[in-house]
Amino acid sequence: MGIVVQKYGGSSLADADSIKRVARRIVDIKKAGHDVVVAVSAMGDTTDDLYDLANGVSPLPPAREMDMLLTAGERISMALVAMAISDLGFTARSFTGSQAGVITDSVHGKAKIIDITPGRITQAIGEGHIVIVAGFQGVSADTKEITTLGRGGTDTTAVALAAALEADVCEIYTDVDGVFTADPRIVPSARKLDRVSYEEMLELAACGAKILHLRCVEYGRRYGIPIHVRSSFSQLEGTWVVSDPQLGPSQGDTMEQPIIAGVAHDRSEAKITVVGVPDKVGEAARIFEALADAQINLDMIVQNISAAATSRTDISFTLPRSDGQAAMSALARIQGEVGYDKLLYDDKIGKVSLIGAGMRSHPGITSKFFGALASAGVNIGMISTSEIRISVIVDESVVDDAVRATHTAFDLDADEVEAVVYGGTGR
Amino acid sequence: MGIVVQKYGGSSLADADSIKRVARRIVDIKKAGHDVVVAVSAMGDTTDDLYDLANGVSPLPPAREMDMLLTAGERISMALVAMAISDLGFTARSFTGSQAGVITDSVHGKAKIIDITPGRITQAIGEGHIVIVAGFQGVSADTKEITTLGRGGTDTTAVALAAALEADVCEIYTDVDGVFTADPRIVPSARKLDRVSYEEMLELAACGAKILHLRCVEYGRRYGIPIHVRSSFSQLEGTWVVSDPQLGPSQGDTMEQPIIAGVAHDRSEAKITVVGVPDKVGEAARIFEALADAQINLDMIVQNISAAATSRTDISFTLPRSDGQAAMSALARIQGEVGYDKLLYDDKIGKVSLIGAGMRSHPGITSKFFGALASAGVNIGMISTSEIRISVIVDESVVDDAVRATHTAFDLDADEVEAVVYGGTGR
Repeated sequence: MGIVVQKYGGSSLADADSIKRVARRIVDIKKAGHDVVVAVSAMGDTTDDLYDLANGVSPLPPAREMDMLLTAGERISMALVAMAISDLGFTARSFTGSQAGVITDSVHGKAKIIDITPGRITQAIGEGHIVIVAGFQGVSADTKEITTLGRGGTDTTAVALAAALEADVCEIYTDVDGVFTADPRIVPSARKLDRVSYEEMLELAACGAKILHLRCVEYGRRYGIPIHVRSSFSQLEGTWVVSDPQLGPSQGDTMEQPIIAGVAHDRSEAKITVVGVPDKVGEAARIFEALADAQINLDMIVQNISAAATSRTDISFTLPRSDGQAAMSALARIQGEVGYDKLLYDDKIGKVSLIGAGMRSHPGITSKFFGALASAGVNIGMISTSEIRISVIVDESVVDDAVRATHTAFDLDADEVEAVVYGGTGR
Repeated sequence: MGIVVQKYGGSSLADADSIKRVARRIVDIKKAGHDVVVAVSAMGDTTDDLYDLANGVSPLPPAREMDMLLTAGERISMALVAMAISDLGFTARSFTGSQAGVITDSVHGKAKIIDITPGRITQAIGEGHIVIVAGFQGVSADTKEITTLGRGGTDTTAVALAAALEADVCEIYTDVDGVFTADPRIVPSARKLDRVSYEEMLELAACGAKILHLRCVEYGRRYGIPIHVRSSFSQLEGTWVVSDPQLGPSQGDTMEQPIIAGVAHDRSEAKITVVGVPDKVGEAARIFEALADAQINLDMIVQNISAAATSRTDISFTLPRSDGQAAMSALARIQGEVGYDKLLYDDKIGKVSLIGAGMRSHPGITSKFFGALASAGVNIGMISTSEIRISVIVDESVVDDAVRATHTAFDLDADEVEAVVYGGTGR
């Protein structure tokens, strides 16, 4: 009968009926004898509406004021959820991020949580209240300014609260039934995973599965918080993200734990190739220094051995498409200094990743993966691997074929097709 | 070159263009060398929209959560105003009521300001910023809960800030040009008052002139803050509310200061008559005790001398129509105890008030007022007077006639008709 922390995203709070349904779910947990703390996102389209308002008055609004504006969204939804709970005969207290003790650094728009001081939350719990906390927001430690946590902020708020309150579980409610072996819109036979490790979930999140944000999973792993990803539209068990899936809190069919967790894909990246880089010490460092100075996050990086005849090599890397222009400009500025031949830019690419703790100890995974891609006629552009992941860059047009072929090759297809919509998480 | 406090209501902040116009006004004052602190209401219909959301999830939302919800409105508008100012090349800092140090009691929905601790405001001013404060809201001294101030709350916030910051003036921007001698929708020849005393403004506000709220004027009088009521849609001087209109800060045509400030009217009240109350000590007290217990604010109260034959009297009073049902129920419960004959309820009434400091020393005002009403065929139902006001209750259908006849009788008509819209203030 410990503390249960829940998170509801914007799609679960789209309108009055959705909010009432969420309130009934929350009250059910309370009735079962648990204390409940809930982190909420802004309702449905509220955040987009607030962005539109800001753009209406200023093309480049100050980040401090943008945070002040956006945090109104969660303030509205948390008050409404508290009201709906009250209407069911239970008492609820809503708290802003600042009131809830979500202490952050002072980087407006993408603040990081430094600490949680949940004094008001524990007091409200002690008084028998259900606690509703505004997700996505906090207050900076030094300047006492209102901050927002950026994408995935409400997931992160929920897991951080669960850690600070030593909760039994952090339930992340979304509009899909859990984490799947692949995007069901591409692979209708994709299966829901009952359990997955933090490490696998991190790779899945990093490789384009939008169901949980990287930061939230990292936080959960660091503090060992079991995360239960499930749908607010059904009562089905979802996916448990835990340290060891074989020993997960919701035991049962653990023997079915797949060696391969799933196939992820990502169509948001672009590829840049720097052609003809002189094969000298420090040339590659100069290139990546220029990109770092431009605040560009790179994903995969590949360098081939240099052609003996020319003593020159090609360096390719992938990055978010939105950073493509900035990266090309940064590289163009150092062409004279580095002396490379030319730049190639390609944003018609996709990344397909095979993820699973099992591949550590199972040789032959790579060859089966590449074999499946070959049978489907998919050409591989770049390759990158980690201990529990293999990613390939392919032509954007064959991403779906690549995902389906891989999914089938690794026997991930379910016997029965589950009808789900595989959506992205908001904030 | 002191501090100027300004207040902009929802109608002045209806959309992006309005907000940009307000920002230009604010920046103009800053350019003129003043420090500027601005209290803002929620944009246009935001408050109504938030009420609708609340009603969608609960028929009787808890007051604490209602305050949490409604305060999102000013949060949105203050951030947008700050952004628009930034877009003009000036820096602005927005603060919630809590951040601005607006300390209140803990009565949700109609909290009273206890103190202002403007440390963050004065710091921001010292750093050269324009300060935007969310009106209508504060934080309770004991429970640290978010509170709202109720109707007229943003006007009150502005005047309270002006007092705490020892500002030179508190400018209340609205959608009309100032305070008029009567509602221009009823009396097209009504004149704008250049100056009016706090006392007259209090009576005007209490008698239905919706331009400034009672609490704001009371606050201004207590701390001697000159209040300048003016339109955000024009550059015209508005009406100065000051302690002595003859010595107002914007001198000029003071000799024209009228003996009568204006004619106000109010169609929001109902009248209850308790018929046949035994003329014994304590009976009236019992009646008003029952009404006080039901939290009903009364306005006018009239008791005639008892008819000698019956030793019974009739007691009539007026009250807000919205409290009518509650008052009738409270009185019905004590009929046995008090032993009155019956209750009469009439909500087809209106109140017409003549207001002016001048009437203290000018006999004949009352007879001229009643004479004007008689000429217009208006029957008087109840009468109530103060040192600077005479109010009569008349049939609702003849309120306009009564206002016009009185306005003309006291030579208040302007030579030229000014085109204005006489709207109500929001919050």
